[in-house]
Amino acid sequence: MRIDQRKVNNLRPIKITTNYVSHPEGSVLIEVGETKVICNASIEDRVPPFMRNQGKGWITAEYAMLPRATAQRNIRESSKGKVSGRTMEIQRLIGRALRSVVDLDKIGERTVWVDCDVIQADGGTRTASITGAFIAVVLAFDKLLEKRTIGKMPVTDFLAATSVGVLADGTEILDLNYEEDSKAHVDMNIVMTGAGEFVEIQGTGEEATFTNNQLQKMLQLADEGMQQIFNIQKETIGSLADRIGETVKQGETK
Amino acid sequence: MRIDQRKVNNLRPIKITTNYVSHPEGSVLIEVGETKVICNASIEDRVPPFMRNQGKGWITAEYAMLPRATAQRNIRESSKGKVSGRTMEIQRLIGRALRSVVDLDKIGERTVWVDCDVIQADGGTRTASITGAFIAVVLAFDKLLEKRTIGKMPVTDFLAATSVGVLADGTEILDLNYEEDSKAHVDMNIVMTGAGEFVEIQGTGEEATFTNNQLQKMLQLADEGMQQIFNIQKETIGSLADRIGETVKQGETK
Amino acid sequence: MRIDQRKVNNLRPIKITTNYVSHPEGSVLIEVGETKVICNASIEDRVPPFMRNQGKGWITAEYAMLPRATAQRNIRESSKGKVSGRTMEIQRLIGRALRSVVDLDKIGERTVWVDCDVIQADGGTRTASITGAFIAVVLAFDKLLEKRTIGKMPVTDFLAATSVGVLADGTEILDLNYEEDSKAHVDMNIVMTGAGEFVEIQGTGEEATFTNNQLQKMLQLADEGMQQIFNIQKETIGSLADRIGETVKQGETK
Amino acid sequence: MRIDQRKVNNLRPIKITTNYVSHPEGSVLIEVGETKVICNASIEDRVPPFMRNQGKGWITAEYAMLPRATAQRNIRESSKGKVSGRTMEIQRLIGRALRSVVDLDKIGERTVWVDCDVIQADGGTRTASITGAFIAVVLAFDKLLEKRTIGKMPVTDFLAATSVGVLADGTEILDLNYEEDSKAHVDMNIVMTGAGEFVEIQGTGEEATFTNNQLQKMLQLADEGMQQIFNIQKETIGSLADRIGETVKQGETK
Amino acid sequence: MRIDQRKVNNLRPIKITTNYVSHPEGSVLIEVGETKVICNASIEDRVPPFMRNQGKGWITAEYAMLPRATAQRNIRESSKGKVSGRTMEIQRLIGRALRSVVDLDKIGERTVWVDCDVIQADGGTRTASITGAFIAVVLAFDKLLEKRTIGKMPVTDFLAATSVGVLADGTEILDLNYEEDSKAHVDMNIVMTGAGEFVEIQGTGEEATFTNNQLQKMLQLADEGMQQIFNIQKETIGSLADRIGETVKQGETK
Amino acid sequence: MRIDQRKVNNLRPIKITTNYVSHPEGSVLIEVGETKVICNASIEDRVPPFMRNQGKGWITAEYAMLPRATAQRNIRESSKGKVSGRTMEIQRLIGRALRSVVDLDKIGERTVWVDCDVIQADGGTRTASITGAFIAVVLAFDKLLEKRTIGKMPVTDFLAATSVGVLADGTEILDLNYEEDSKAHVDMNIVMTGAGEFVEIQGTGEEATFTNNQLQKMLQLADEGMQQIFNIQKETIGSLADRIGETVKQGETK
Repeated sequence: MRIDQRKVNNLRPIKITTNYVSHPEGSVLIEVGETKVICNASIEDRVPPFMRNQGKGWITAEYAMLPRATAQRNIRESSKGKVSGRTMEIQRLIGRALRSVVDLDKIGERTVWVDCDVIQADGGTRTASITGAFIAVVLAFDKLLEKRTIGKMPVTDFLAATSVGVLADGTEILDLNYEEDSKAHVDMNIVMTGAGEFVEIQGTGEEATFTNNQLQKMLQLADEGMQQIFNIQKETIGSLADRIGETVKQGETK
Repeated sequence: MRIDQRKVNNLRPIKITTNYVSHPEGSVLIEVGETKVICNASIEDRVPPFMRNQGKGWITAEYAMLPRATAQRNIRESSKGKVSGRTMEIQRLIGRALRSVVDLDKIGERTVWVDCDVIQADGGTRTASITGAFIAVVLAFDKLLEKRTIGKMPVTDFLAATSVGVLADGTEILDLNYEEDSKAHVDMNIVMTGAGEFVEIQGTGEEATFTNNQLQKMLQLADEGMQQIFNIQKETIGSLADRIGETVKQGETK
Repeated sequence: MRIDQRKVNNLRPIKITTNYVSHPEGSVLIEVGETKVICNASIEDRVPPFMRNQGKGWITAEYAMLPRATAQRNIRESSKGKVSGRTMEIQRLIGRALRSVVDLDKIGERTVWVDCDVIQADGGTRTASITGAFIAVVLAFDKLLEKRTIGKMPVTDFLAATSVGVLADGTEILDLNYEEDSKAHVDMNIVMTGAGEFVEIQGTGEEATFTNNQLQKMLQLADEGMQQIFNIQKETIGSLADRIGETVKQGETK
Repeated sequence: MRIDQRKVNNLRPIKITTNYVSHPEGSVLIEVGETKVICNASIEDRVPPFMRNQGKGWITAEYAMLPRATAQRNIRESSKGKVSGRTMEIQRLIGRALRSVVDLDKIGERTVWVDCDVIQADGGTRTASITGAFIAVVLAFDKLLEKRTIGKMPVTDFLAATSVGVLADGTEILDLNYEEDSKAHVDMNIVMTGAGEFVEIQGTGEEATFTNNQLQKMLQLADEGMQQIFNIQKETIGSLADRIGETVKQGETK
Repeated sequence: MRIDQRKVNNLRPIKITTNYVSHPEGSVLIEVGETKVICNASIEDRVPPFMRNQGKGWITAEYAMLPRATAQRNIRESSKGKVSGRTMEIQRLIGRALRSVVDLDKIGERTVWVDCDVIQADGGTRTASITGAFIAVVLAFDKLLEKRTIGKMPVTDFLAATSVGVLADGTEILDLNYEEDSKAHVDMNIVMTGAGEFVEIQGTGEEATFTNNQLQKMLQLADEGMQQIFNIQKETIGSLADRIGETVKQGETK
Repeated sequence: MRIDQRKVNNLRPIKITTNYVSHPEGSVLIEVGETKVICNASIEDRVPPFMRNQGKGWITAEYAMLPRATAQRNIRESSKGKVSGRTMEIQRLIGRALRSVVDLDKIGERTVWVDCDVIQADGGTRTASITGAFIAVVLAFDKLLEKRTIGKMPVTDFLAATSVGVLADGTEILDLNYEEDSKAHVDMNIVMTGAGEFVEIQGTGEEATFTNNQLQKMLQLADEGMQQIFNIQKETIGSLADRIGETVKQGETK
């Protein structure tokens, strides 16, 4: 039994509210237990300089926390005048993950800006951001489909993320909250597609190590959790779910 | 009749949700029409260097918008590496306003950090921030009262803010939304205490001017609106309202 | 009687030296009592990106203090690597004020850069900057008129600024020096046109409040002072004064 | 056969020159094929503020490239005034990895600064940095042992890193050079201890995905490569190798 | 005959106005031809961290230009958020030069901040800054003498600076104005003591070179000019001139 | 006899390794005693904005030290977010010096980026940088000659630099190492062409002064040393030496 009475293979309750903010093309509030993240997807009709004149699009992500999303207030990065290494790592991860399931060749010279703003944090903010941002991006593309700006849903598969870890006593667990995360010997974030393939595995033993056997057990837990998350995502977007995968990336077969 | 069917002296609907985020000592979500701001008040047990060893406290405010709080996405100030002039003006204003109704001598060497984060903007974000932040601060002091860290509520009076303006056709109006604000010839923000005194008047004719007569009409509209806002604030905090004013600042009489 | 023997409705002596620095199109040294500000207006033959291809011009202001303009030396903002909130507020105010009396449609795609550099400070540096910058801008436009770059003086009216305030004993006073300003309960900056209309009212009760009655008395004092300042401005520019107002902004009548 | 004639499970030649720079406590030049990194370890007799008064030490890493370490010249991060997200990710990784095999409780309140400066880059600069930095750190601690500042070698095990990946044709390969890296569908960096446990696994499918089966093949290749690297490290430090592991971290058993 | 009718060995007219700004301990406006610099010396009762607890003082200089000191407006360094290489070179030069004639052991743990702000530039701003700053520093120390904070004038000798150069036709000239400076093949700044010794020689052939013979001729011209500048400095400070040199640095003889 | 047993007119041993790094068009490692600097020259096919459409090229230099090039570790300038005054002075010096012997009219609209990265410092890093960078630039131009991008070697003469100084006992010495440099009363850097003309003289008496007689003795020592350095440069580049000077700058005669 875990601190919050969950079993080792239990996720925390997940709730996704769509159209949370009115201006963005796609907007959700995702709640994973006590962690709450606003994920907004904005479409801009141009690409960054290094992508110009290639006839394809780009997806980029930014991540931030409200100063008091955490138990102790954090100084704003705008006040410090620079973005921390942790923030940069997370926003690079979110962007990479989303690009893995979007056919950038099908969206024209457009940039999708994904903003993940954590309003309340209790562990797993980066994985909640990916799971929520996926829905925001689908909603934003749906706007383009409605306006017939693009002809097909360019999203090739579902995408979600969760964490697994190893506690001090050697137990492998799924979906760590803040207290578990701060005590765990190993922390691993996994991003996966609906087809069950890995997009990203980031496993870290901060001042500790882990064996291949432990790795396999963690991957198994992640796989279980991920199926439940994909189901929640499908329910959230309803009939739009059928359009995921109508585009297949060049040279790729499912 | 105005764009959104209001009369010239009508406020937009105001809704204040308390304890919106769990970590801060005081937290509210304030909605003024389509404008939505999370106001968090955090208590820190020390003061900035310039205030040390004076036995009194300090209140400081920070203000930000989510990038997609607006119709067009804005670049994050953390990415730009600096805070804009507009942001600085607003956060200085919020801090000054709150300090005018708090007896800093009664809170010990503590800093109240007020974070106003706009998640959706439709005009009047700075005045909504002040109205909401006032409640967040009262809730935070209530926590200190409960823990008997302080003995009396240090808030000397209610505090709220609204905007008034003059349209191109010369009509004075109350509580401008974004569309009205962007077309108005004169825009005035007013911060007032429950006793009906001014804390701040900031009237600006961007590429326009206004007469003393127009000023008086605007002040009258503001006064009407303010009474309604004070009533909403009172309902929001219930019996806590009775403790506002139990402290009177040195040399001040009501 | 005030600290410096003035009556409550007395301005400090004002002296405006034109062509103080040789390079700028318009240049004045304005002295208001012990406050001394160099105001330079420079004409640049292009506008900022957000103004391009609209066939109109722009006026922007920058404000700074020499490190030892004050009793205590201040760290240079260039050394700190960022401009303070106070500086930004002031330069935004100066720019807005000047734009209110210039018909930007008549100056072509040009930017007027106004630099207000305080070389000695004794209170009222922002209002002295506005009063002086107005003259510098008129002189700069006169250069354009001489070169026949523009056909009419695009300045629609005189513009000046002063401060009023309320002392701890409740007395309303005009044109506060540094010592008065640091002790006053209420401080209000007023920018007015030659026609007696307001461009900007910024009244602040730092840790204090003020009534509508006090507001009216302050506005009355400001009005008295402003008439004297306009006279000094008229003497300073001599026959050029007759050209002020030869342009009337679209949709405006005096 | 690969571009450079290696088999899929071949490492590039590795050469480690010790005492490359004279000032640092530990210094090596590591060459992995055409990739060359100077790794310097410096001992500072204090810890960062967040670590003070805990009686233990800290290891932190910084990573940079000479502007012309690459085929195209890069702008210096000092000129840009900020460190890129990629640099931050890498230096956080190097620091975490080294801390996993050092018993920070045994080095007193000291900081080990590890500087990895890439003078020539051909893929795998972060993994070469870790492999080289490990030796630099061991050499630096040896200096402290010689001076009897510490009594035991605080390094609990060997540590090295390498990369594996999946080419477009589905082949799994070991130790990618730049050309392979830029074309690979999957890129995975692995940090491992001498005991064969993982410290870090970072696998990324940029715009691609990978299966668990592919993951297992990559881990197998990494394991083969790592044994060869540990042998090179052992030869490099000679008899010092016997002292690795004389300290065991609290609560850890090998 | 030169552009402005001077002979090759003629200085431009020099005028030094003392007590130009009221707040600083020492303040002068120095005019060298059309070049005008405000030099303020401020005394702070502490030294920078690297100088603490050595019982001696420090002199540091900052240099800036008003944006419109030049024919084209320059962007403020505070707006750019960083100080240019040219500015840094100049302020390091001014600080070094002043420290060479002040016995820092005699001023206690104090810092003299020297601010040189160019309000109008026509070549030679750095040399005018040094010549003027010397007087400002002497006046500031005189304040300390009057208050008996220090017992002896700590200035060991006079100090002044000027420029020499070689024109395209090979002519050596003294005290270059802006137009001459921008065309000269060689530009040399010389800082000298009243005893005729060099403190600094900085000779530069931008895209050109010079011979030892030309160097000697330039040094001769500088020497002639310097004697005149020392005379002007002496007249400026009157009887205070007698106190220069009453302190001799340790190990130094005149 | 000096600390390291050299006579007053002895240089330290100089070693120049060409093609040290593989990517740059020109690359050398220069060792002057214990000082080691990597000098890389990169050719970019465009010029900075202020040089465009003039049909000529530009040379610019950047200089940095590895954090542990010195006895005490220095904080990276990229971490500090700004480049120090010392660094800026040095890189401006290197760029100016190189431009003095290159006919920029003959290289087309190209920029030569010279990167001098000190990997080990023992005094004289800026002079070693110039001496080494000269060779790197010649090698880079040789690449352009081989590719027939340019027709003639645009380098008009050899270029080298060294330091001279005056010790506390009044002895003039050549080529100061770190220990001598930190104790010297006078430090002078001299940049000279193969024809024996000066490009730059920078002599500084930090808290000290020097006479014209001492200046002459230092110049004599520098001249002796420079002849030896030119010989080493000639040996390093072999037959390429014959092409130096095949271009003569407009209006220049040797």
